[in-house]
Amino acid sequence: MSKLLIVGTVAFDAIETPFGKTDKILGGAATFIGLAASQFNLDAAIVSVVGGDFPDEYLELLANKDIDISGIEVVKEGKTFFWSGLYHNDMNSRDTLATELNVLADFNPVVPKGYQDSDVVMLGNLHPLVQSSVLSQMTKKPKLVILDTMNFWMDNALDELHEVIKKVDVITINDEEARQLTNEYSLVVAARKIHQMGPKYVVIKKGEHGALLFHEDNVFFAPALPLEEVFDPTGAGDTFAGGFAGFLSKAQDISFESMKNAVIYGSTLASFCVEKFGTERMKNLHENDIQKRLQEFRNLTQFDIELSS
Amino acid sequence: MSKLLIVGTVAFDAIETPFGKTDKILGGAATFIGLAASQFNLDAAIVSVVGGDFPDEYLELLANKDIDISGIEVVKEGKTFFWSGLYHNDMNSRDTLATELNVLADFNPVVPKGYQDSDVVMLGNLHPLVQSSVLSQMTKKPKLVILDTMNFWMDNALDELHEVIKKVDVITINDEEARQLTNEYSLVVAARKIHQMGPKYVVIKKGEHGALLFHEDNVFFAPALPLEEVFDPTGAGDTFAGGFAGFLSKAQDISFESMKNAVIYGSTLASFCVEKFGTERMKNLHENDIQKRLQEFRNLTQFDIELSS
Repeated sequence: MSKLLIVGTVAFDAIETPFGKTDKILGGAATFIGLAASQFNLDAAIVSVVGGDFPDEYLELLANKDIDISGIEVVKEGKTFFWSGLYHNDMNSRDTLATELNVLADFNPVVPKGYQDSDVVMLGNLHPLVQSSVLSQMTKKPKLVILDTMNFWMDNALDELHEVIKKVDVITINDEEARQLTNEYSLVVAARKIHQMGPKYVVIKKGEHGALLFHEDNVFFAPALPLEEVFDPTGAGDTFAGGFAGFLSKAQDISFESMKNAVIYGSTLASFCVEKFGTERMKNLHENDIQKRLQEFRNLTQFDIELSS
Repeated sequence: MSKLLIVGTVAFDAIETPFGKTDKILGGAATFIGLAASQFNLDAAIVSVVGGDFPDEYLELLANKDIDISGIEVVKEGKTFFWSGLYHNDMNSRDTLATELNVLADFNPVVPKGYQDSDVVMLGNLHPLVQSSVLSQMTKKPKLVILDTMNFWMDNALDELHEVIKKVDVITINDEEARQLTNEYSLVVAARKIHQMGPKYVVIKKGEHGALLFHEDNVFFAPALPLEEVFDPTGAGDTFAGGFAGFLSKAQDISFESMKNAVIYGSTLASFCVEKFGTERMKNLHENDIQKRLQEFRNLTQFDIELSS
């Protein structure tokens, strides 16, 4: 069985949308990535850190999805990373109300022995030095390293971010972040510039407008499924990344054709994530739900035109 | 041969984009629709009006594309409709600098005898009363009536717009206009409300984010081709509508499957339109250019996932 190592935050989120608000609930990049990847029945592990205030039931939820949590350090006297955000009416823009790094501030990740030879490494959103540290602990070159990041690190740790970007095969990044990283408005030009920074594959996530996959001169696009309403976008990008990484780990095929399907799986899983607050929908997702929605994606995008040339 | 009747403005545009600016050049909804539809070798005619200031060479350009221009009234003592716009850096927003209705203000459309039995009627952007008047002149019920409109008529002639919307089979409308017409943010909900206003098929154009086709419980999506740069978006929506209408006229098949292909053709033609100012690119477009780009659309969107159910 293919091994997937996931790095990223495991956190508390407090979310307010036009549909309601939550107290502190389970969140974090690695949480969403792990829940999405767990759909592929992999040998997956999370490397992260939480405080003594983190409920056991949240860790058990991950463990019950067959995710190895031995790499989630619990700092008894510390507090768990906390993020709070307010979504506006269009659900495309949000204000960050609070970011409390807490135990993340001094996090030294330790990759469990059994996962130092993982086939796929998914570096979810965290300080680029933490992402680099995880890579340096691998005893075998992974078949595929995927990196997700965000504008916060471009603002605060750009040199370190460039260092880790050099070392990865795939980057997943949202459209505004791709523009910020490259100073280019055109996503086609931005993707080319990011290729030059290292990654052979560039995935640009456009939220409700879908996702683009670039590799050399090839480009593939997957829309987001048109939904009646997006209830809570939190975690959708991480869920996309988790579906993408999970599919590729399972398929053990990192060709462009396989990556196209990974993008479709990522989009499919993200379309569930936004239906409820936080991890609510992802916790209770079944294979037949996914198969049904993959069929919807096919209906949404596939056509049959005869070409004369 | 299938007959296509096109109604809409034939106009002067003056355009400024981050890449440059033009004097008064050939523009207008019917112009872009006609140029796009002419790719399908149809028996097409335009109903419109211009002033005595309109150059013969512009009319000849349309005639040379085998478009019947006998329904374009020339008001010798009048001035041609003029629109001027300034696009911002992101190319997604623009300011209208001038709108001079001129001869459009008193336009009474006359459908040429030979086109009163057209199979397909494409009602391009114009006053809803003009669109209704054209429909009332048809001596045979058209197989398909397609309507395009814009926010200007929602602001200024909403009742008349609702009257003509009742009578059409397909509406093409952009995302912001769909939201304005229905007071719904979700495009899925907006499309359902527009269905209830009359049209069985609803096409929502999202500019650089592609287009959605809704029919009963079916939805199809076509992205816009990712381009290095969009030079001038003027006419892209009309070119989309012209490609859509032209394909369906040629195919003589108005099933959902056929409409999906019409959306792909519309998107393909629109991707050329934005490459140069005004009609510059559409004037010199060849069948092999189109076939090549249709192949790019296929590469961009088609995937092959085996489903278990």
